[in-house]
Amino acid sequence: MRVEASVRAPRDPHGMLQLIQRFPQMCEEAWGLPAEPAGRIAPPQAIVALGMGGSGIGGDLLRAVLFDETVGPVIPVKEYRAPAFVGPQTLVIACSYSGDTEETLAAYDEATNRGAPCVAITSGGALLHRAQERRHPAVVVPPGLPPRAALPYLFLPMLAVLARAGVVRSFDADLREAVDVLRRIVADHSSDRSDSPARRLGEALSEHIPVIYSGVPFLEPAAERWKDQFNENGKTAAVWNTFPELNHNETVGWGMDAAVAAVLHVIILRDAVEPERLARRVTITRELAFARAGGIDEVRAIGRGKLARLLSTILIGDFVSWWVAVQRGVDPYPVAVIDELKRRLAQR
Amino acid sequence: MRVEASVRAPRDPHGMLQLIQRFPQMCEEAWGLPAEPAGRIAPPQAIVALGMGGSGIGGDLLRAVLFDETVGPVIPVKEYRAPAFVGPQTLVIACSYSGDTEETLAAYDEATNRGAPCVAITSGGALLHRAQERRHPAVVVPPGLPPRAALPYLFLPMLAVLARAGVVRSFDADLREAVDVLRRIVADHSSDRSDSPARRLGEALSEHIPVIYSGVPFLEPAAERWKDQFNENGKTAAVWNTFPELNHNETVGWGMDAAVAAVLHVIILRDAVEPERLARRVTITRELAFARAGGIDEVRAIGRGKLARLLSTILIGDFVSWWVAVQRGVDPYPVAVIDELKRRLAQR
Repeated sequence: MRVEASVRAPRDPHGMLQLIQRFPQMCEEAWGLPAEPAGRIAPPQAIVALGMGGSGIGGDLLRAVLFDETVGPVIPVKEYRAPAFVGPQTLVIACSYSGDTEETLAAYDEATNRGAPCVAITSGGALLHRAQERRHPAVVVPPGLPPRAALPYLFLPMLAVLARAGVVRSFDADLREAVDVLRRIVADHSSDRSDSPARRLGEALSEHIPVIYSGVPFLEPAAERWKDQFNENGKTAAVWNTFPELNHNETVGWGMDAAVAAVLHVIILRDAVEPERLARRVTITRELAFARAGGIDEVRAIGRGKLARLLSTILIGDFVSWWVAVQRGVDPYPVAVIDELKRRLAQR
Repeated sequence: MRVEASVRAPRDPHGMLQLIQRFPQMCEEAWGLPAEPAGRIAPPQAIVALGMGGSGIGGDLLRAVLFDETVGPVIPVKEYRAPAFVGPQTLVIACSYSGDTEETLAAYDEATNRGAPCVAITSGGALLHRAQERRHPAVVVPPGLPPRAALPYLFLPMLAVLARAGVVRSFDADLREAVDVLRRIVADHSSDRSDSPARRLGEALSEHIPVIYSGVPFLEPAAERWKDQFNENGKTAAVWNTFPELNHNETVGWGMDAAVAAVLHVIILRDAVEPERLARRVTITRELAFARAGGIDEVRAIGRGKLARLLSTILIGDFVSWWVAVQRGVDPYPVAVIDELKRRLAQR
């Protein structure tokens, strides 16, 4: 049973659920968006992805997807400044959904002044204006969405632009697989039935602090995205970390007081296929440390290619975060505190 | 009043406090440690720092310190594998205190096979053995410490090696300033008096989950180190994040239930001098979001140079984590769960 508008309206008046359900379609659309003016992109020594929040996580996803590809390092930068190494040999991708994110604009200006070739991804604003003035290729994405709900538009054009320029191999087949997998997830997770897995998990989490651990480094940005979506959709605290790094410090932290441990609910993001050592680490750490948590669940990535595995894990988390919002009785769409922060920052 | 051995013994039988107090001296010693065999290091396109936990945070510190220096990007890697871009143009620094960290050894082997020039930092073990076989320069550091207590030995040789090779400018003056600042912190924070700032903060934190936010991106690795030290010394949970990124998602998470917010205690790491926009973000976010926390404190970096500011913030956190352990009645030194994890991983 799909969630009907009449059922949805009181708890999700702005339709965040519909946006989550459009994720697969957005992926297809995002893949075909052109960068204009089209221009040659030389193979860079490094790729720097400038962007904050929902417009910044695309850089983390790009780094994960290109880990095994013979291209320079991908370096996400989430601040007002471009690192000193940025110059003519660096490709800079400046991403701001609104086009008016002050950190990204400042870093983009600095990168431009240092002679770095730049590409912009935005729905408009000052970023589009400056990119057009500077004759930098710009991918213009559909406007009017919360940036976090526009993730496919903000991440996939980076990869598509690099592939079309020949800087990385084609990911067309990977994208097709991902869209198929994502469509199945929408079909499976949109149900309002009380035994829907996303609903069950969302309900279990709503009175806890979710602790999202990626079982493998590849899924690290998915864990971060889950955290961000609990924050923004669910209006609640969440924590994330990654195997195997967490075995070297945070695992000891599970010696915390029992009353504190009971507040935490661990979710481990498992890859479709995992190296044996990492899988053993997860198994042992569950026994030694996480047994003290208020709850523990696992969610498994779906698919063969990196895009399918990463985006499937993310989309499941988006659904779970929506159920957390419903369960907590909050509207998943608005982020009033960010609006108020920007208003106060704009005052002189 | 210094903490006397007779006072200390029952609560810190292995002497973690003495190790924390030796931090400034370790910095001086670390700065002079040679890399042998000495060899020419060509300016790399990128620097990759391999290492986990206490042997990995040095890579994060190096990245922060070199942000404004004209050298390739610094990329910390905390897993079993080296990214595909690693090759003859990449300088790889493999760091494992024991020399037997399986993730670091595996990534080091992969980097070696790809022809990357490598430097090792270790007290011995398989890493030293392999580095000597491969004629890679190795910095041999004093053995017998918990890796996290050996941080100066694991971080500073990276910078010293790069400076001596002419890959980056001299940091000698920066190091001297840092040691002076650190000595003053030891004098100020070793007191057992009930009004000692580290003691007061440690006591306030011991029944909360500390949430450490760096007020500026530069102090991000210090926030992570505070988290790690609460985990390992205090045996308790902790969380970290960074301005301005946290303004784009986690700030909304402070809409959490009041009962959950009351469990959290925010500590903001402030830089000695901060850009005006970032300082305003901190001020506004304190009012809008953190007012709901169970507690809130700020700690300010000391000094002019980056080494002084970063290491001063870290050392203060080390003292606070020691007080958290004392207050919780746990021994700050052993990490039994990591020992048990390694024992089980070693079983076939």
